[in-house]
Amino acid sequence: MPPVTLLTDYGLADAYVGQLKGAILSICPTAKLIDLTHGVPPQDVRTGAFLLWTAAEAFPPGSIHLAIVDPGVGTARRAVAAQCTRGDLFVGPDNGLLGPALDRLGGASCVVELTNSRFWRAAVSLTFHGRDIFGPVAGHLAQGVPLTQLGSLLQRLERPFAFPLPRRAPDEIVGEILHVDGFGTLITNIPGERVASAFTVVLKGQRIQGRKAAPFESVPRGSPLVLVGSQGLLEIAVREGNAAAAFGASVGDFVAACPPAE
Amino acid sequence: MPPVTLLTDYGLADAYVGQLKGAILSICPTAKLIDLTHGVPPQDVRTGAFLLWTAAEAFPPGSIHLAIVDPGVGTARRAVAAQCTRGDLFVGPDNGLLGPALDRLGGASCVVELTNSRFWRAAVSLTFHGRDIFGPVAGHLAQGVPLTQLGSLLQRLERPFAFPLPRRAPDEIVGEILHVDGFGTLITNIPGERVASAFTVVLKGQRIQGRKAAPFESVPRGSPLVLVGSQGLLEIAVREGNAAAAFGASVGDFVAACPPAE
Amino acid sequence: MPPVTLLTDYGLADAYVGQLKGAILSICPTAKLIDLTHGVPPQDVRTGAFLLWTAAEAFPPGSIHLAIVDPGVGTARRAVAAQCTRGDLFVGPDNGLLGPALDRLGGASCVVELTNSRFWRAAVSLTFHGRDIFGPVAGHLAQGVPLTQLGSLLQRLERPFAFPLPRRAPDEIVGEILHVDGFGTLITNIPGERVASAFTVVLKGQRIQGRKAAPFESVPRGSPLVLVGSQGLLEIAVREGNAAAAFGASVGDFVAACPPAE
Repeated sequence: MPPVTLLTDYGLADAYVGQLKGAILSICPTAKLIDLTHGVPPQDVRTGAFLLWTAAEAFPPGSIHLAIVDPGVGTARRAVAAQCTRGDLFVGPDNGLLGPALDRLGGASCVVELTNSRFWRAAVSLTFHGRDIFGPVAGHLAQGVPLTQLGSLLQRLERPFAFPLPRRAPDEIVGEILHVDGFGTLITNIPGERVASAFTVVLKGQRIQGRKAAPFESVPRGSPLVLVGSQGLLEIAVREGNAAAAFGASVGDFVAACPPAE
Repeated sequence: MPPVTLLTDYGLADAYVGQLKGAILSICPTAKLIDLTHGVPPQDVRTGAFLLWTAAEAFPPGSIHLAIVDPGVGTARRAVAAQCTRGDLFVGPDNGLLGPALDRLGGASCVVELTNSRFWRAAVSLTFHGRDIFGPVAGHLAQGVPLTQLGSLLQRLERPFAFPLPRRAPDEIVGEILHVDGFGTLITNIPGERVASAFTVVLKGQRIQGRKAAPFESVPRGSPLVLVGSQGLLEIAVREGNAAAAFGASVGDFVAACPPAE
Repeated sequence: MPPVTLLTDYGLADAYVGQLKGAILSICPTAKLIDLTHGVPPQDVRTGAFLLWTAAEAFPPGSIHLAIVDPGVGTARRAVAAQCTRGDLFVGPDNGLLGPALDRLGGASCVVELTNSRFWRAAVSLTFHGRDIFGPVAGHLAQGVPLTQLGSLLQRLERPFAFPLPRRAPDEIVGEILHVDGFGTLITNIPGERVASAFTVVLKGQRIQGRKAAPFESVPRGSPLVLVGSQGLLEIAVREGNAAAAFGASVGDFVAACPPAE
């Protein structure tokens, strides 16, 4: 049985995550539930999409990914499920949350609007579609219900936003910070293959050295450096420290890298 | 095998939750452990009782619910286990934590004081009855040990507190805020069926419109509204925002709703 | 199948824990994953070592403990796995994190440096050895791969630090605070068996009474007390309160206990 991963903005101080899990287990008592994170900032669909994009690939093909960051709950936004070419299934609101992860795993081969209420909780609340629609649907998928039984086929998912792409200037690549992680590391949108093996980054007027090989050894503790991170993107870090604090940097700040790769 | 749900005030920064799980798995290696929350404010039995009340119903009948918010640990307060008429089992301190959830699932059909130390850890500490008593007992229940073997029968659980009930005045219903969730939504004690399909709520001198159908569409982003939430109670929210911050409201603040239902 | 416990400083706001779990499940789809904590302060190896020391013993012998607090990732520090005499397996960086827990379970009977890349992810990043090395290795151990296949034997683990030991003066024992837990309880390094059944502790110039039996009953709510905690160490608590806040105390503060045990 494939794992069911969970990504939400529910936080861990309430029992919403618990109720979501109860809803899945009520349909599929043997489901293997794995938390990706429930710490997406409330209603921050972009951060949710970024984190889902980072995480889904690490799971076995055929996994079920349930993602809920849903500021439009209770409005006309659609509820959807989709399968990617690798075989993974995604369930969530049709608000841009699922698209980047689906793309990374080969794109959607089948998209369905969740219209078949037979696979929902008997009573559906206005605000908690995780417990009432998405969770039960994920439970049925884990039980082996075919995607196409869950509702009517859609041509494609909504694409209300895209992650910004870096742009190439004559002698540099200009990108921006996509995410600040819990260590204070600044994750940019510049792919590592876009820069030379030794390079320089400019952030907020400060120059930071980057090396693709063994970068940590090249700077003392407490000093900044740039490296190619675990997602293949340039990351600005402070060795054994916190780059976000050191630079006063946050999501959206510009980063220029030079020289580019040959 | 039924899931064993866990609700505590242990937090996630220590390894107390880990030790609790180890204690259960040491008795029942195949137990399916599901976190409801470990973010109950320290020693806040009422919030724990509220969250357990919200969550237990979402699980399959026959689930085992282990709940520990236990300011009286190390004193004469009893340790108990109880079964509700739906079949779920509850384990925890006898301090009011379990009662509301048990009531919601039909009330207790059997209550036992945990006096049989054969089902405990060999050495019991003064402060960590989760690891030493409650966890092992839950493990034995998951293994199929009958409730009545765990100790001596009790007539009933202690009821040191009850959630306040709203009171009906001539033209309004006066309730209060029971809980503020992680989105800043204010959950009141007023059941949705007690108000008309369109109604008004007064909180801290401000009037807020409520509609039972499609409330989110009725207000622009950033505006407050009242709706019937996922527990059937009136909730004051801000569309894509935080009502607790917007109103400076917290648990215990009064809320008046009018007009009442016919 | 033994549980695989997880202790990291990854936090819960990112999806790093999710990716780590995906890496394990990609190797061993049936692995039973149990979080000890992911709230170790970033790169705080000592706190990680303390929490692992508290928790590992509660799990069944033969469990697999994956612990990652790894400020040296990307440098020359070794990656290791070790088996203790009780049978548990430990996986993590060779930076002192694993030693105290291994010692508590009887010491290491076999230590291996993780050099066999056949058991790693195909592509290894500079910064995320949890997903790329430690997780896959734990997955293979859960699948039954013998420890000795993972790499070359080591004589012993690195011991870059040790928890401080209390020292005995003529009429007292002088120790210090090892950890402050989420309740604000101050956990010292003084074993309970080192003091008499009734004793006194001095912290920051204030005297606090300690009793080994029924200590909570001996003081009113809100008053401080000393007791023997769940790890067998003296702990300074405030009944239904927060001792760290009450005393302004933190890790490393000295604590003197008198009289010592006979």
